[in-house]
This record gives sequence, structure tokens and C-alpha cells, in this order.
Amino acid sequence: MYEGIREEVCRANLELNERKLVISTWGNVSQIDRSIGVVAIKPSGVPYEKLTPDLIVIVDLEGRVLEGELNPSSDTPTHLELYRRFELIGGVCHTHCPWATAWAQAHRGIPCFGTTHADYFYGEIPVTDRMTNEEIRGEYELNTGRVMVRRFSGLDPMQMPAVLVAGHGPFTWGEDAAGAVEAMLTLEEVAKIAAATIGISPQQPPISQALLDKHYLRKHGKNAYYGQR
Amino acid sequence: MYEGIREEVCRANLELNERKLVISTWGNVSQIDRSIGVVAIKPSGVPYEKLTPDLIVIVDLEGRVLEGELNPSSDTPTHLELYRRFELIGGVCHTHCPWATAWAQAHRGIPCFGTTHADYFYGEIPVTDRMTNEEIRGEYELNTGRVMVRRFSGLDPMQMPAVLVAGHGPFTWGEDAAGAVEAMLTLEEVAKIAAATIGISPQQPPISQALLDKHYLRKHGKNAYYGQR
Amino acid sequence: MYEGIREEVCRANLELNERKLVISTWGNVSQIDRSIGVVAIKPSGVPYEKLTPDLIVIVDLEGRVLEGELNPSSDTPTHLELYRRFELIGGVCHTHCPWATAWAQAHRGIPCFGTTHADYFYGEIPVTDRMTNEEIRGEYELNTGRVMVRRFSGLDPMQMPAVLVAGHGPFTWGEDAAGAVEAMLTLEEVAKIAAATIGISPQQPPISQALLDKHYLRKHGKNAYYGQR
Amino acid sequence: MYEGIREEVCRANLELNERKLVISTWGNVSQIDRSIGVVAIKPSGVPYEKLTPDLIVIVDLEGRVLEGELNPSSDTPTHLELYRRFELIGGVCHTHCPWATAWAQAHRGIPCFGTTHADYFYGEIPVTDRMTNEEIRGEYELNTGRVMVRRFSGLDPMQMPAVLVAGHGPFTWGEDAAGAVEAMLTLEEVAKIAAATIGISPQQPPISQALLDKHYLRKHGKNAYYGQR
Repeated sequence: MYEGIREEVCRANLELNERKLVISTWGNVSQIDRSIGVVAIKPSGVPYEKLTPDLIVIVDLEGRVLEGELNPSSDTPTHLELYRRFELIGGVCHTHCPWATAWAQAHRGIPCFGTTHADYFYGEIPVTDRMTNEEIRGEYELNTGRVMVRRFSGLDPMQMPAVLVAGHGPFTWGEDAAGAVEAMLTLEEVAKIAAATIGISPQQPPISQALLDKHYLRKHGKNAYYGQR
Repeated sequence: MYEGIREEVCRANLELNERKLVISTWGNVSQIDRSIGVVAIKPSGVPYEKLTPDLIVIVDLEGRVLEGELNPSSDTPTHLELYRRFELIGGVCHTHCPWATAWAQAHRGIPCFGTTHADYFYGEIPVTDRMTNEEIRGEYELNTGRVMVRRFSGLDPMQMPAVLVAGHGPFTWGEDAAGAVEAMLTLEEVAKIAAATIGISPQQPPISQALLDKHYLRKHGKNAYYGQR
Repeated sequence: MYEGIREEVCRANLELNERKLVISTWGNVSQIDRSIGVVAIKPSGVPYEKLTPDLIVIVDLEGRVLEGELNPSSDTPTHLELYRRFELIGGVCHTHCPWATAWAQAHRGIPCFGTTHADYFYGEIPVTDRMTNEEIRGEYELNTGRVMVRRFSGLDPMQMPAVLVAGHGPFTWGEDAAGAVEAMLTLEEVAKIAAATIGISPQQPPISQALLDKHYLRKHGKNAYYGQR
Repeated sequence: MYEGIREEVCRANLELNERKLVISTWGNVSQIDRSIGVVAIKPSGVPYEKLTPDLIVIVDLEGRVLEGELNPSSDTPTHLELYRRFELIGGVCHTHCPWATAWAQAHRGIPCFGTTHADYFYGEIPVTDRMTNEEIRGEYELNTGRVMVRRFSGLDPMQMPAVLVAGHGPFTWGEDAAGAVEAMLTLEEVAKIAAATIGISPQQPPISQALLDKHYLRKHGKNAYYGQR
């Protein structure tokens, strides 16, 4: 019944490995089918080389397993909180890719230093607050989702498909699982170039609002003119 | 009719990907045939794995599409400005490769710290001024070309086949599309070594004019003696 | 007689090379069979491309060769000291992988800057004291083991499967040879991300004890809930 | 007649490319046969993918071409000066590999920060003086050899098979061409780890003389005990 979504989610998880965004089992991708209210997600702790579509777990938006013999990713409550609160997203990705994780560990948002960044992310990539001891000791994975959602007060997740959880690492999202992985790949490259930028120029200011608008809006929204439209 | 130039341009674009100078669709290469006044360029937003010679777009020097069903790269007006003003160049390349982009984002020219640099680039690799809001909001892609050309006042593009657009990234050129890609590959390596150099020695001065002359001129110009001449 | 352990140890040593944790012959892995008191270890100075199970050397806990025609790794006395003193470990790995080695050379423990680290290592990854001239000129390899063991006074090697020998490089351990290699792979990634973190934020403090506990203990110990338990 | 030496030199040059120590044509390796006073060296400017043993050029110790249709590497006079003055070396290698080149550009010797370094190089890897304008404008390639030899006053090239030419890059040597390439591979790794080390600990002192002696001498000289002796 869930064959299509399982295959897409399996493919997106394997892509994480092929694009070298993860080592070991350090990442997971999910996708939602909003028409029937189900989410397909990677099982917990399964090596990528053994991942096949039939191992993908199907859960509902409250995290109940509908199909699948394995435990879903331990990060499932985090993904579900994002799906519940960011109503237009279709896929979620989480990794510990090195450069984005370094910014998250440094507890710094990634300033928009150039057009590479502006082509995909409309402004500084935000970092969450540190989680409180109560949030950590309580429903930790759910609270990880909540701390991200709280950070997006005043931000549009469709214009900023990435966030850094302080002391943890990046989450990205997109139209579907593949889109969430593409956002992660882009984030990692942007994070690496930004780290190199401040290595060369430690006090570097971000680009102008005019340049940010130009690049973001030539690729996104109703006046976009990049690509084959 | 344009079979030869399409193939060369397609090959050069694929080379960007094979040499890991780009991820996703972040780069483009073009080539001009000055005898008939046409430029062949990558279509906008097409993944490298789907790029074939018949998808390459043929435009004239004012940007009118002469052949091809897809939109040309959104950077086409930038390439054309370079072809119009740098009359001896035959190919142009643009990427967001990480080290050269980091220098562009840091708004710093790359000093000539060694002979690796001096073998290809006759002095500091220049960075443009930041574009004004008027230039950005106006004919942005054309103005991107103009800001590079303006920076070359007093510089010979044949002795300096690269420039960094501030807050954006590198453009390179050469005799043809393949030459422009080779210049990009060299620029990226030089940019990486230069960043490592200032990591070790933050106040490092450039090499002497005598050493720059020696290395550049043993490979270029009428007294060159490198290679099989 | 020792066919099984030889194969496991050979496989783990080859994995070092495949995962790019070593160049040349710069690493070694061993495994102990505590039921019969023997250790299988890489022969000294043999290139990975020539390593086969029959070349693996079998020694007892005092370092006497029981089987094998080649000299065991010159680091054998170091491995044996770890097996004698850390009674629950089953495999030991040593490399000169670049990021972990850089921290060892810098004579700094790796602070726990994030959950990537906390998932595997319960706190700061310790660095040993510098060895004294007497320790170096005496039974050097044995003393290298002793300086690590000394550093673990008050630490549980099962919760901290890695250590940095000052001015030298990392040792890791695990349930078996494969587990020791996995710990090394994880250490190297954590070391790389930590170096990037202090590049972005030089005075970065470690994460909270609550977050460290949460992540370490959701993967390890009796209340673990990560994976397929 | 020179079939054996041509093949060894060709193989060693290809190894530079396979080990990613060079891009484009940025490196060369030679080997001497002291019994007949000839040196085999890479031709100038030939891409690695087109290099075959029959293209290797045979010269005598004064640089006269004895066999071969192509020009020898433009660095030939540098190699020959090393062979004339360092009478026990059998192979020479030159590259612009990024980390060693960065130290050369920074005009800093590489301190011996750890045992990885001490296993191969007996102390700080030396950097030459900057060449004077007279040396540059005169017999440049020969003078490049001379500035290295001058730097080795009081140093034994057999205990220090590498040097950094200031503002230029590394040269290494060994028993033969393959040994010179192995020294380059080791130098590049050591240079990378050393750069990371000072990134973490900018004022890091070198290791003790006792530790340097221990590691260097357990691999080299009459009391060596590493490997299968």
C-alpha cells in the first residue's frame, strides 16, 4: 500500500550516504503523504548498505507505527513536530554533516556571505536556543522539534528550509524527501564556504539586502526567471 | 550547423562536474566562435547528468537565441559582456567552487603567495567592487559583467584569466571553453593553498616581482621555455 | 586453529585503509580471545594491499609469538597493556588519522561540543600526559600503554573508548577489532568537527551535562532506546 | 637500453597523480643510475594520462639529453644539482601539493609536532631562504637547487628527505623514484596535520628530543626494530 513513499524515502536515505553527508547511521530522512496523514521514515540504527524499501517504517502523525517491523528512527517525534507545525513541507532530513554541525556546535547562525547562500536560503540560517535541562530530560525528541519551531517565529519555513539545533546539528526540509536531502547538500556546502570565509576575513559582514533579494527571488516565487519555466 | 562548438561546450560543462568544481547545477561554461559571432552556452538549471550537446543553446552577442529549445543560462548576459569587452578570450567559466568563492565572499583579492599561482596568473587575482543597489536592481547579470570589466582597467585579461565577483564567486576565461575550465581548476587550487598559507602565516607578504616575472614568463609570452615548444 | 580471529583482525585492518583512516602502513588493529588468552595483531610494516589472514600474528598476553612467521606490530606491547588493564575490551586500534592526531599533537583533549560526540563518548576525549624521557628511553611501547591507563584513573574505558597520546596519536577500543575501528572512525569525524567548531568559535564551551547524559545514555546502558532493541 | 629506469620513473610519476599529489602537470619525478651517470626524468608539460615509459627523457649529470624526443622537465637543472651534491640519493620528486606548498609559501619550516613526523623526518622540515633577484634572474632552476643545498649545511639529507623552497613548494628524495614519491606523500600528510595542530594550538612547541630520537631511530639506522628485519 505504501510502496511509492517507501521507495522515495529509501532512495533519499541512500542518497545521504552516496553524497557523503553521513558516516555510519548518522542521518535520517522522512516524507509525508498529507492526503492520508502518514509519514514514512528510516528505521533506527540500520546501516545504509542494508536499507531497502520494505524496511522503511510507516507512522501516523502521532507516531503510532502503521506498518513496518522495525523501530522508526529515534528522531521520529522531531520530524513529526515539524510536519505538524510547518504545514507546507513534504520531507524532512537530519544529519551530522561536518560543516553544518560545526556551526551548530559553535552556536552561531550562518550569515549570508554570498550569492551561493542567497540562491537557496533567504537570509541567515538560524540556530536555535540551547535546550533547557527540563526540555532535555522531558520529551527530548519532541522538544527538539519544538525548539526549532519556536526559532521560526517570524520566519517562513518555505523561504528558509534549514535550521541548526544548538549543540546538535542541522535539520532541513523540502517538498519531499529528495528536496530535503538537496537542501542538506546545499546547506553543507554553504556552511563550508562560510567557515572558509571567516577564516580569511573574521569580521566579514553579510551581503546587502538588495543582493540577497535579487538572488533568492530570481530562483523562487512568482517573479523567478532561473531554470526552464 | 553548430555541432562542433556544442560538443566542446558540453564536454567542458561535464568536466566541471567530473573535476568536482560544482555540485548540483552550480556552474556554467560557454565558448564563442568569433568568425560567425555566436556563443554556445549551457541551458539554465539542467543537471549535468542530463546534459547532452543538443541541449547546448546558441545565442548571438546580444543574447538572442539562434538555436536551442531551452533557456540559456541566466548568467548569459554576464558571459556576453566579457566576450564583447575582452576581445581575445574564447571561453568563459563560472562556478561557486568553495575556496575561490570564500575569497570572493571575504572581498579579498588572492595575493600571489607562490610560484603555483605565478605560473598561471600574473599577480594578485583581483576582486571586484561590491555592486551598488542600482546595479543589482537594474540589469543585474549585465552589470555583473560590467563590474568585472571595470575592475580590469589597467589589467590585461590575457595575463589574468580570473576574477572574483565580491559576495558572489569566480569567473575565469581562456582560449576556449576547455581553457576556461582549466583556469577555474587552477584558481580553485591556488585559492585553497592561499587560504592555508594565511592560516599558517596571517601577515604573509606576496612573492617578489622578480619571482613572479620568472615563473609567469617562463610559461607565457615570446620567451617562454616551459613545455614542448 | 586461530582462523576465525585472524580473519576478523585482517578484515578490521583492511577496513582502516578502505575508510581512509590510514596512509602507507600507519595503523594497526588487534583482537583478543580472552577464553584462551591470545591476541591476534597486524604484522609490522606490511602494506595493506599485501595483508592476508595468514600473515596475522598470534601472541600471548606477555607478547610471546604463538603463531606467525612475521614480527608483530612494534606497538604490540602497547596493545597488550590495554588488554591487561581494561578487562572488558576485546579489540584495540591505533592510527595516525589526521584530525585526531592534530588534537593529540596540540596536547588538548577534545571537548564534548555536541551530540555527535555525546552519542559515542561520555565526556571530553582525554589526552595523556607527555611521556617523560625515562619512559621514552625505557620500555617505550609498554610505557605508552601505561601512560594511557594512568590517564584513565577515575574514567571507565567502556564509556570512553578512545584516548589521545600526547605528541603521538589516538588509540581506540571496542568489543572486538571491528568495534575498535568503528570507534576510530567516529573519533576522527568528531575530531574534525571539533576543530571546525573552534575555528568558528574559539572559546566555545562544551554542551551541558544534561545533554551529554541524554545522548550517551539513549544509546548505551540499560535504559538505551536507540536502534532495534 | 634504459628500459628499466624509464619504467620506474614513469610509474613513479603516475603515482603522483593516483595519490592526488598533483593536478594538471604540476609535478615531476626523476631517478639516477649512478653506475652509468644518467638520470631519467619526466618530459616537460606532458599530461599524466599520456605519459608512457618511452616518453621519459634520459639526461647526463650536466643535463645533456642522451635519449628522448621531448624536452625534459624545466626543473631538470634543479634535480641534477641535488644529485650532484647529495651523493647518496637515488630519486627526486617535486610537486605543488597543497599543504606542503602552504608551509613553503608561509616561509615556515614544519616543526616536529609528533611521532607521525618523527617516524620519517629527523627534526623540523627546513625551509630555504628566499631567493635573491640575482638568483632568480640568473640560472634560476640551477639556483633553486643551490638554495636547497645551502640550507642543508649541517643537515644530513639521508635523515631529512624533504625541503620547502620558500615561496615555491616542496622537493623530496629517496633511494629511488618510488622512495621520493613516498617521502612526498608522507610530507603532505605531515604538513596537513601540522597545519591543523597550530589551528588548535597556535603556540604549540615541538616534541622532545627524546621522543624524536626514539621514533626516528626505531625505524632508521643500525638499531632500527620496526618492520620485518
